[in-house]
Amino acid sequence: MIYLNCDYNEGCHPKILERLLETNMDQCFGYGDDKYSNHARELIKKAIGNDNIDIFFLVSGTPTNVAGLNQILRRHQAVMAPDTAHINVHETGMPESCGHKILTFPNQNGKITVGQIEDFINQRNFEPVVEHSVEPKLVYITYPTEIGTLYSKEELEALRACCDRHNLYLYLDGARLGYGLTAEEGDITLQDIAKNCDMFYIGGTKCGALLGEAMVIVNDDLKEGFKYIIKQTGQLLAKGRTAGIQFETLFTDNLYIDICEHANKQACMIRDALKAKNIDFLYETSTNQQFPILPNSFIEKTKNEFLFDANKIISPELSAVRICTSWATKDENVEKLIRIIDKEL
Amino acid sequence: MIYLNCDYNEGCHPKILERLLETNMDQCFGYGDDKYSNHARELIKKAIGNDNIDIFFLVSGTPTNVAGLNQILRRHQAVMAPDTAHINVHETGMPESCGHKILTFPNQNGKITVGQIEDFINQRNFEPVVEHSVEPKLVYITYPTEIGTLYSKEELEALRACCDRHNLYLYLDGARLGYGLTAEEGDITLQDIAKNCDMFYIGGTKCGALLGEAMVIVNDDLKEGFKYIIKQTGQLLAKGRTAGIQFETLFTDNLYIDICEHANKQACMIRDALKAKNIDFLYETSTNQQFPILPNSFIEKTKNEFLFDANKIISPELSAVRICTSWATKDENVEKLIRIIDKEL
Amino acid sequence: MIYLNCDYNEGCHPKILERLLETNMDQCFGYGDDKYSNHARELIKKAIGNDNIDIFFLVSGTPTNVAGLNQILRRHQAVMAPDTAHINVHETGMPESCGHKILTFPNQNGKITVGQIEDFINQRNFEPVVEHSVEPKLVYITYPTEIGTLYSKEELEALRACCDRHNLYLYLDGARLGYGLTAEEGDITLQDIAKNCDMFYIGGTKCGALLGEAMVIVNDDLKEGFKYIIKQTGQLLAKGRTAGIQFETLFTDNLYIDICEHANKQACMIRDALKAKNIDFLYETSTNQQFPILPNSFIEKTKNEFLFDANKIISPELSAVRICTSWATKDENVEKLIRIIDKEL
Amino acid sequence: MIYLNCDYNEGCHPKILERLLETNMDQCFGYGDDKYSNHARELIKKAIGNDNIDIFFLVSGTPTNVAGLNQILRRHQAVMAPDTAHINVHETGMPESCGHKILTFPNQNGKITVGQIEDFINQRNFEPVVEHSVEPKLVYITYPTEIGTLYSKEELEALRACCDRHNLYLYLDGARLGYGLTAEEGDITLQDIAKNCDMFYIGGTKCGALLGEAMVIVNDDLKEGFKYIIKQTGQLLAKGRTAGIQFETLFTDNLYIDICEHANKQACMIRDALKAKNIDFLYETSTNQQFPILPNSFIEKTKNEFLFDANKIISPELSAVRICTSWATKDENVEKLIRIIDKEL
Repeated sequence: MIYLNCDYNEGCHPKILERLLETNMDQCFGYGDDKYSNHARELIKKAIGNDNIDIFFLVSGTPTNVAGLNQILRRHQAVMAPDTAHINVHETGMPESCGHKILTFPNQNGKITVGQIEDFINQRNFEPVVEHSVEPKLVYITYPTEIGTLYSKEELEALRACCDRHNLYLYLDGARLGYGLTAEEGDITLQDIAKNCDMFYIGGTKCGALLGEAMVIVNDDLKEGFKYIIKQTGQLLAKGRTAGIQFETLFTDNLYIDICEHANKQACMIRDALKAKNIDFLYETSTNQQFPILPNSFIEKTKNEFLFDANKIISPELSAVRICTSWATKDENVEKLIRIIDKEL
Repeated sequence: MIYLNCDYNEGCHPKILERLLETNMDQCFGYGDDKYSNHARELIKKAIGNDNIDIFFLVSGTPTNVAGLNQILRRHQAVMAPDTAHINVHETGMPESCGHKILTFPNQNGKITVGQIEDFINQRNFEPVVEHSVEPKLVYITYPTEIGTLYSKEELEALRACCDRHNLYLYLDGARLGYGLTAEEGDITLQDIAKNCDMFYIGGTKCGALLGEAMVIVNDDLKEGFKYIIKQTGQLLAKGRTAGIQFETLFTDNLYIDICEHANKQACMIRDALKAKNIDFLYETSTNQQFPILPNSFIEKTKNEFLFDANKIISPELSAVRICTSWATKDENVEKLIRIIDKEL
Repeated sequence: MIYLNCDYNEGCHPKILERLLETNMDQCFGYGDDKYSNHARELIKKAIGNDNIDIFFLVSGTPTNVAGLNQILRRHQAVMAPDTAHINVHETGMPESCGHKILTFPNQNGKITVGQIEDFINQRNFEPVVEHSVEPKLVYITYPTEIGTLYSKEELEALRACCDRHNLYLYLDGARLGYGLTAEEGDITLQDIAKNCDMFYIGGTKCGALLGEAMVIVNDDLKEGFKYIIKQTGQLLAKGRTAGIQFETLFTDNLYIDICEHANKQACMIRDALKAKNIDFLYETSTNQQFPILPNSFIEKTKNEFLFDANKIISPELSAVRICTSWATKDENVEKLIRIIDKEL
Repeated sequence: MIYLNCDYNEGCHPKILERLLETNMDQCFGYGDDKYSNHARELIKKAIGNDNIDIFFLVSGTPTNVAGLNQILRRHQAVMAPDTAHINVHETGMPESCGHKILTFPNQNGKITVGQIEDFINQRNFEPVVEHSVEPKLVYITYPTEIGTLYSKEELEALRACCDRHNLYLYLDGARLGYGLTAEEGDITLQDIAKNCDMFYIGGTKCGALLGEAMVIVNDDLKEGFKYIIKQTGQLLAKGRTAGIQFETLFTDNLYIDICEHANKQACMIRDALKAKNIDFLYETSTNQQFPILPNSFIEKTKNEFLFDANKIISPELSAVRICTSWATKDENVEKLIRIIDKEL
C-alpha cells in the first residue's frame, strides 16, 4: 500500500537521522541553548538575510501558533483570520483555551483580503461603544493556505500596508512554508515574508523533519519574554538539540528548498495527469497537496494500492480527495499512479 | 430629550426601590442565602411550575452566560450559536477568555436551525479524526433573539429533540425574556422554556430591574458546584439580597409580565405608525425593540427631541435605527412620537 | 438577634437609597458614562488630590482584583502576596481561572515585607535559567489586611521603593479601605495610597454601599484598554449609574470617612471591654473587625442575642470569633454587648 | 569537560536511534495511531500487568502534567501538592495559565503527607461557606520527588486510602520514574503505582529518550476525551511514532529498568565516596540525583573537568550542588571523579 494521504507518513529525511546519530553522545546545555540550535539559528538568519531576528525551535504547529498569539495579544485583543484558518478549525480550540477570540471572515480562495479587514474596521469605528467587542489586533495568514493557494507578493504587501494603517500585527503560519516558497506560481521569497510579517514560523514537521517548527520574531516589540511563553505553552524541549538539529540539517545545502520543490513537482505531475483526463479540482494549486474530484469507481479500483485522504462527498458518484506528496514520496510511486490514471480514467 | 435608544436608560421599577427601602435595615446572611432571595426562588418556581429546579441570582447578562458555559462545558467542548449571538459579538470575548470556543452559524432570521446543527454533526462524523476540532456540546439560543425575532414552540421542541439525538445541551439566554414571553406572535411560555432547556436565565436588567439575572438550572446533571462557578465568574454579590429583591418584586403580582407586555405594545404602536407610512424595517418583530429604516431627514428633524440608537447605514438618505421601549417609557412620549411620525413622514 | 458577624448584613446607607430614588427616572447613558458616575469621579479625584487618574466603578471585590491583574500582567508574569491574601484564599481561584499565578509568602502579621520580596528576587537571580518559573511583576497588598492590621506609611513607602528597584507594580486591595483610613493607629491617607500605588480600589460594599468598588489607576502605563477588561471580567453594569451613585453619595459630605470611623470606634469599645476582662485576641487591630478568643460558655450564653462569626477552634474551652461593626451597627447594640461582657466575663 | 549537571545532556539511548533508523521509511498513520505506538502500549500494559488502562505518548513533562490536570479537574477544583512540586515551581505557571489553582503544603522531606491533607479538609469543613475557596480534588505526588526522596509503599497506600475517604484523585508525576523504581531503598513497583494512582506518567526524556512521556490512565472515569485534551494542550505529534518508538525501545529487553538502575548505582558510588570524606548532603537519596554540600575550593579545583549544577549557597566556604548521572554517564568518568574525591577532599 502506498500512502499519499498526508505529508507526515514517514519519519524524517535521512540526513537528519544521520546528524542525530553523529551528535548523539555530545554533551550540550538543554532547553535550546546548545551549539546545534545556535548553528541552525545562524543558517536561518543567513537564509532570511537579517541578523536582527529572534529564532526559537518549538515542537508542533498548533502550539507554535498559540505561543505566537500568547506572545502578541493582550487578553481583550483578537485575531482576524479566514474561516478556513488552521487556528479556527483544526486546533481543538487551543487558541480559545488560552483566551484568544478569533474573528473569522469567509475565506476568499483560502485567504483573508484587505477589503474584508477594512470593512470590519470601518463598521467597528461606526459603533458608539467599541468596548463591548474584542479589539482586532493581529491578522493571521497561512502560506500556502490550508487549501494550497498562495498570497501574491502584491497581496502580502497590501496586507502589510493595511496592518500599518490600523495598528495591527501580521502573523504568518508556515506549517508548509517550503511548499509555498517553491511553488511554480508563487512569487514570494523567505526574505519577503520576513520583511512583511511581524512574526512567522518555518514549518519542519510537514517539510521533512521528525518534529519541530522554527518561530521567527522580526518585530522588536514582540521579542521580550518569549522564552517564558514557549515554556508556558508546553513547547520547551529539555533536549532542545532535537529540534535544533532538524533545522540545522534542513537549512544546510539547500535541503529544505530542494525536498519541497521536488514534492511540488511530483504533485503537479499527478495534477496534470488528472487534468489531462478532465478531472475537476476543488482548488487550484501547484503545491504538494492536490484536491481532485474523483469518480468513486476510480477510488474503489485503486484502494488496495493507494491511500488518499477522503475530503468531501460531491455527489453519489464523485468524491473530493487529498493527494499529498513529500520528501519521502518515491518517483516510481508517482509514475505508477500516473500510469493508472492514464489507463483507468 | 426623550431617550428611546435602549431599555436601560432609567433606574428600576419604583416597586423595587420601595422594597429595597422597606427591607434595608433587616439583617440577613450574605451571598444569596437570604430570605428575600429565597422568597424570589419560590415565586419563580411557582411561575415555572416546577419545584425541582435550582435558581441563582447573578449580576449581569454577559457573565451570566459565561457562568453557564463554565458550568456546562469541559474544556474541549464547544458552543453552537448563530453568528449574531450575544456571546459571539457583544461580550468582549469573555467566553473565549474562559476557554470556550463558539462554533458560529449564519443566522437564519436571528436563529440557529436544526438543519444547521444536523449538517455540522454529519460532516463532523464523516471526518476520520474528530479530536482535531472541538466537540460540540451545547446549543445556545436567545429568546427573543438579538434582532427581536422569536423561536416558535415547534422550533424550540425540534431543537430539544435534535439536542437529545446528539447528546447536546440546550441553553437559553433570556436577557429580554419578558418581552419574548409577552410578544403578540410568540407562542412559548416560561413553562415551555423550562421543559425544553437544560439551563436558561430570566433577564432582570433589561426588564425593569436595577441589575440582576436569574439563572435556572433544570437538568439535574448540571446542578453540582454552580455556587463555586458563580463566585469564580465574579458574580457573587456579598449583599445577595440586592439581586434577590429585584426578582421578588418582579415576580409579585405579575409585574414582570405586565411591564414587558406594556413595553411591547408601545413598541408595536410606534411600529404600526411607521408601517402606515410605508417605512421598511430591518427585521420583523413585535417585541420592544424596533429597527425601522428611516430617512435621515426625519432623524435630523427629531434629534433634539428623541434619541434613537444608530444601527446601520443603508444609503446616503436612509439609516436603520433601533427604537426601544421599556417599563419606564411614558405613554405620552410614545404618543408624541407617533404624532410626529404622522405629521413628518 | 443582633448580627455582628460581618459588615454586609444590611442593605446600604440610607442616603444612597434616597439618591437612587431621587434620580431613578432620569434618563442616562449606560455602562458608566452617566452624570452620576462622572460626578462621583470628580469627588474622588478631589479627595485624592490628583486629576490625572482614571476611575472605574465595578461591582464586587473579587472580580475587581482580578480585573486589576488582567489589566496589569502579561501571561507569564505573577503576583507576589502574603499567604493570607484575599486573592489567594477567598476568591475560589478566580485569579488562576484567568491565568494568574500567585507567589505566596508566609504573612508577617498579615503583611508581605520588603525583606521577603528582596530575598525572593535574589534567589531567583541566582538561578541559571529564569524562564522555568513565572516572572514576578506585581506586589499585592491589602489595607487594612485580611486580619485588620495596617501597613505604616514607612512600610508603604519602603514597598514602593522596593518595587521601583525591581521593576514591579504595587497594587492595593481596599475592600475595607475606609476602616483603614480611619483607624486610630493608622498613619496613611488616601493621598499616600495614590502616591505609592500604581493601581488600587476603594471598597464600597463593605463600607456602606449596596455594591460597587471604585478602581483607581494612577500609573499612566496601566490605563489603556481597561474598559475592555472590565467588560471581559464581567463587571460592566448596563445601568452603570447604580454603582456610580453609591460613590457619589459616599464621597459627599465626608460620609465614607464618617461611617467607617464610627464603626471603628464601636469595634474598639467592644475590644476594650473585652481587654478589660483579660480576653486575648488573635490579632491586634483598631479597625472594625475584632478577633477575640472567647470562652465557649460565653458564646453559648449569648448565642440567642448575638451572632458572631466562628473563626478558629483554640482549645476545648476557647474559640476565636470575628466581631464586626459597620455603618449600620446601632450604638445601643454595642452598649448592650458591652454590658453583657462586663457582667458575664 | 564532563557534564554531570543534569540527566538530559546527551541525545538518547543508541537503541532508540537504531530503531528510528530501522523504521524511518515505513508509512504509518499519524497522531499516535501507528504500529510502533501500539506495540509500545502493549509492552507497557504487560509491564504494569493491567490491560484495562489507556496509554498516550506526549512530548514533555510540564505539558504532560498540565494535560492531566486539564483532563481531571473541573474549573473550580484544585490540586493539593507539596510546595516543592514541579507543577508549583518549574512550569512557568502553565497549570495556572490553564486555570488550575495549586494548594501548596510545606514539603515533608519532599513529600505531602496524609496528615496535611486531613488537616486541610477538616479546617475546610469547619468553615460555614465552602464556595469562597476552591474545592480540593486531586493530590499530586512525584516519584521520586524533586529532591530524590521516595514515598514508601505504605505511604502510597495511605495516600490512596485518604483520597478514597475524601473523594480525591491521586496523580503521580513520574518524570524520573525509572530512577525511583530501581532505587535501592525503594519498595514500590510499577504495578503498585498503577494500583494506587488514578493517573500517572512514565518519564521518557530524563530516562534515556530523546523526548516523550507515557501517560497512563487507570481510573475509567478519567478516560473519556483525553485525545482532545492532548491536542488542545499542544502535545499531539503529527508523527506520533517518534514518541511511540522511544517507549517501544525502552520497554523492550528491560532497557528502561537497566539503564536507570545503572545510573543510580553510579550516583550512589559518588555519594558513598563523598560520605567517606564526611561530606554532608542536602537530602538523603539513592537515586541518580545527589545533592552534596561541597567546599567551594573543591568545586573550583574541579571546574575545568566536571560540570555540576549550582543549587544553593550554604556558607562563604560551602555550596550545595546537584550531581546527576544517566544512561549516558560513563563508568570511567564516575571512577575519575571518585579518584579526585579521594585525593582532594
